[in-house]
Amino acid sequence: MDFETATPREVRQLIREGKYTGQTSGMCRGYAQANLVVLPKDLAYDFLLFAQRNPRPCPLLEVSDTGSRTLHEIAEGADIAKDIPKYRIYKKGELEGEYTDVSEFWRRDFVSFLIGCSFSFEGDLIAADVPVRQIEEHKNVPMYNTNIPCRSAGVFHGNMVVSMRPIPYALVPKAVLITGQMPRVHGAPIHIGDPSVIGINDLEHPDYGEMVTIHEGEVPVFWPCGVTPQNVIMQSKPDFVITHAPGHMLITDVKNVNLKY
Amino acid sequence: MDFETATPREVRQLIREGKYTGQTSGMCRGYAQANLVVLPKDLAYDFLLFAQRNPRPCPLLEVSDTGSRTLHEIAEGADIAKDIPKYRIYKKGELEGEYTDVSEFWRRDFVSFLIGCSFSFEGDLIAADVPVRQIEEHKNVPMYNTNIPCRSAGVFHGNMVVSMRPIPYALVPKAVLITGQMPRVHGAPIHIGDPSVIGINDLEHPDYGEMVTIHEGEVPVFWPCGVTPQNVIMQSKPDFVITHAPGHMLITDVKNVNLKY
Repeated sequence: MDFETATPREVRQLIREGKYTGQTSGMCRGYAQANLVVLPKDLAYDFLLFAQRNPRPCPLLEVSDTGSRTLHEIAEGADIAKDIPKYRIYKKGELEGEYTDVSEFWRRDFVSFLIGCSFSFEGDLIAADVPVRQIEEHKNVPMYNTNIPCRSAGVFHGNMVVSMRPIPYALVPKAVLITGQMPRVHGAPIHIGDPSVIGINDLEHPDYGEMVTIHEGEVPVFWPCGVTPQNVIMQSKPDFVITHAPGHMLITDVKNVNLKY
Repeated sequence: MDFETATPREVRQLIREGKYTGQTSGMCRGYAQANLVVLPKDLAYDFLLFAQRNPRPCPLLEVSDTGSRTLHEIAEGADIAKDIPKYRIYKKGELEGEYTDVSEFWRRDFVSFLIGCSFSFEGDLIAADVPVRQIEEHKNVPMYNTNIPCRSAGVFHGNMVVSMRPIPYALVPKAVLITGQMPRVHGAPIHIGDPSVIGINDLEHPDYGEMVTIHEGEVPVFWPCGVTPQNVIMQSKPDFVITHAPGHMLITDVKNVNLKY
């Protein structure tokens, strides 16, 4: 199978059968991928409210019915417990293990949150000749904790996590306009330039992901990051949480272009 | 006080003191006004999920903390139970009465939902020479039940309610582009033209509001309407709901222009 041109449904079936367990970067070109957070119902209201109050880092693409493993809006027929190549289970905020299928752990009180991913706007940046360094260098994007507070909701509170892409000065306005068209996948940058302004004191050593090269004449540009909700949830140390493993996303049936409208 | 140029804080104070109990149309030019729905906590998760699944008719501007009568995002320091000129109380889906202050009814399990209002984009339409008929004719906007299903969430389900504005054919694209810039106040039209396509069989007799004149060479254009959530809630006949009275809105500190970004 040519993963770049395969349909999301074909790839999800392959993953469901356990025949693909790798990262999903670059698969099903043009289709949105989504972050997963699964929480027990007793935490779901607080998290839904946290997402409502913090749409920049937590753009919800779909929320499942309680106990349901199926989706209806972004990936009709998908099995949330099987169609992601790799999952993580956290107990009391500590990583317990990685799994390729979490159906044996499923509970009738689970609610699944599918959260937009900045991967959706990177295609538009590249198409418009704005470089995306971590793709050029085959790395994970560098991500940082900041001093930008999220709005609290119930038990959930914490600061925003951001991703960083170095952009040539002349292309910064274009990068803002392109990503600003896609608020459902984090939208416009949250900060442009001096990292210390948002509490990042060591740009060379990201808190998550890998550092990428910043060329002469480029400025670091920071976008709200989908790691924020996971980070905030882990701080509250809930008994049991399932997430995707970083880079191993749900491939949805939603075309990136349709996230603009 | 000149209500058109007064600040939202000044007008809210006057309303809080019971010195103004009328409609808010045209007050505090340039500032967004908001619909109110107050529900007990046991219904709040389902309604928050309903809004997440139906952002076109239910764009949430702010959700209060449980039991709190104050807001922090759209109207710092506002008292939800006093700062709206007129409220309605519904019991089991039936209108029980209208009040200018609902503080005596407040309960510690109440959650307040503030929902965006299309009034915010009408200023931009008028500024761009797109006529807004119900303002020209000093009427309430005509609103209709449709056959467009909302996505259900828990106990809440039903069809979308739409508002209608007649637009000259040549200005329809401009009306789409202007309102499409403001998804937090219903955004672009949901339908343009033949009303029967969306289940409206008698355009002359709106289900809510008043009919306005459609001139030769104009097409009816329909937008998702903030009456939808109230309509959906009333169908489920909850024991106790507080809303604003139609036309008597919360005047927020949010400038309409800031709802675009």
